[in-house]
Amino acid sequence: MNSVDEMEVAKRVGVTMMSNDKAAQALEIKLLEIRPGFAKMKMVVRRDMLNGLDICHGGMTFSLADTAFAYACNSRNKKTVAMQCTINYVAAAKEGDELTAFAEESSLSGRTGVYDITIVNQHEKTIAHFRGTSYGTSSTVY
Amino acid sequence: MNSVDEMEVAKRVGVTMMSNDKAAQALEIKLLEIRPGFAKMKMVVRRDMLNGLDICHGGMTFSLADTAFAYACNSRNKKTVAMQCTINYVAAAKEGDELTAFAEESSLSGRTGVYDITIVNQHEKTIAHFRGTSYGTSSTVY
Amino acid sequence: MNSVDEMEVAKRVGVTMMSNDKAAQALEIKLLEIRPGFAKMKMVVRRDMLNGLDICHGGMTFSLADTAFAYACNSRNKKTVAMQCTINYVAAAKEGDELTAFAEESSLSGRTGVYDITIVNQHEKTIAHFRGTSYGTSSTVY
Amino acid sequence: MNSVDEMEVAKRVGVTMMSNDKAAQALEIKLLEIRPGFAKMKMVVRRDMLNGLDICHGGMTFSLADTAFAYACNSRNKKTVAMQCTINYVAAAKEGDELTAFAEESSLSGRTGVYDITIVNQHEKTIAHFRGTSYGTSSTVY
Repeated sequence: MNSVDEMEVAKRVGVTMMSNDKAAQALEIKLLEIRPGFAKMKMVVRRDMLNGLDICHGGMTFSLADTAFAYACNSRNKKTVAMQCTINYVAAAKEGDELTAFAEESSLSGRTGVYDITIVNQHEKTIAHFRGTSYGTSSTVY
Repeated sequence: MNSVDEMEVAKRVGVTMMSNDKAAQALEIKLLEIRPGFAKMKMVVRRDMLNGLDICHGGMTFSLADTAFAYACNSRNKKTVAMQCTINYVAAAKEGDELTAFAEESSLSGRTGVYDITIVNQHEKTIAHFRGTSYGTSSTVY
Repeated sequence: MNSVDEMEVAKRVGVTMMSNDKAAQALEIKLLEIRPGFAKMKMVVRRDMLNGLDICHGGMTFSLADTAFAYACNSRNKKTVAMQCTINYVAAAKEGDELTAFAEESSLSGRTGVYDITIVNQHEKTIAHFRGTSYGTSSTVY
Repeated sequence: MNSVDEMEVAKRVGVTMMSNDKAAQALEIKLLEIRPGFAKMKMVVRRDMLNGLDICHGGMTFSLADTAFAYACNSRNKKTVAMQCTINYVAAAKEGDELTAFAEESSLSGRTGVYDITIVNQHEKTIAHFRGTSYGTSSTVY
């Protein structure tokens, strides 16, 4: 279980990051929950997020997952960057869909971590599986 | 070498896709070149594409690569979707940077293809390596 | 829950595949459990599986995961092949370690599937995370 | 261009690694060429490398690529490990096929690198595309 202190650190990391995250703000991504190694975020698929097939552009789905990944891997107030990410698209998202990303820490050893992010729509249908490899710097977030 | 007809098909695919690609338009992604199995695109990093560290959000870099991937793999007028993508971030992009994505077909066998997209900045410094796995449907683009 | 028939099909797939899988036999990989969308396998790290650093060669760890992936995605008696796989190494395995791979189906839609394989050692320490993208053919396994 | 000294270092790294690489020896992988950031290797597909479909087991193809990756990323005598690898299978390899892996450094910045390995058969047909993410330690190879 996480201590009260760890939870407070994670929350402060979330508030600090989101206040300055212009891309996440532009996509209207909301941080619903954050704790050590975990983040939950939401994004509604807008018309300007659709591709030429009128489904959600893969880059927009990825952006939601990547944002949740960033917050989860920085949640211990250790500034951490993405080295490599992989995404599998398993179902299409449409205009108006409410996408939720759940980012969980699968491994953390030394400076490097592995995070798994699942994106589901409002019907709990899985839209994409994302996995990120992170690398921790020596800095802090706040 | 590509025939004149193949080149015309690729161009028409590019125009058709871009005219309806609301996400690419919102990111002001420009299609510079398209031919069978290849696409070259450009995007300038705007302020609203930055993350909390004031560098280009990984999702925005990915979106440029993913768009170039989509146009390259649809360039033969066979509607083709992304199944899986992987990206390695190797340098940070900053506000005002002009990013160019080069998407090339590394393999195409049956319905599935492998495409490699490299993103460089205005100084020809590599920003990211992206690889996409595609799956061709039975439809056409136009 | 799986029906008795589905379980029988999965078991027969496992026996059929293993009886002819010369590489898995050479690595002394054992199939411990198979059911629709799932396979559990074991491999002991032999001396001839070590690399120049005297730890288990990444290709050997991958081979165990890839084998479990193959059995899980073929378990419904639909011949299915690997298109793309990704692996994250999170801890080293040593000579004599008993590695167990758990392969689970994360998504299956149409012909394509996503499978997650986790490899742990005898102390339940995670050694690697593997994710495979599969493509189903029109043939059967047996 | 590489200096004579860098070439000598790379060769000595190759000889040192191969002399102790029991897995590569067991698979009869041959190091054909090594220079800074590059390695070329060969493996003949033996009967005990086939899977249940009588084609080369994906883990064996991966093992060849992963070995070439390891030698390329260690070639500057900086002990370097694989963090994450991805492979796309694009054609099947059969018993007796002579597979050659070409490992090239696509990026190296700080401790982390990206390497691309292509595997071709004796007819120069591409069998697989592999990409590895490496992490450099503070040790040397010899």
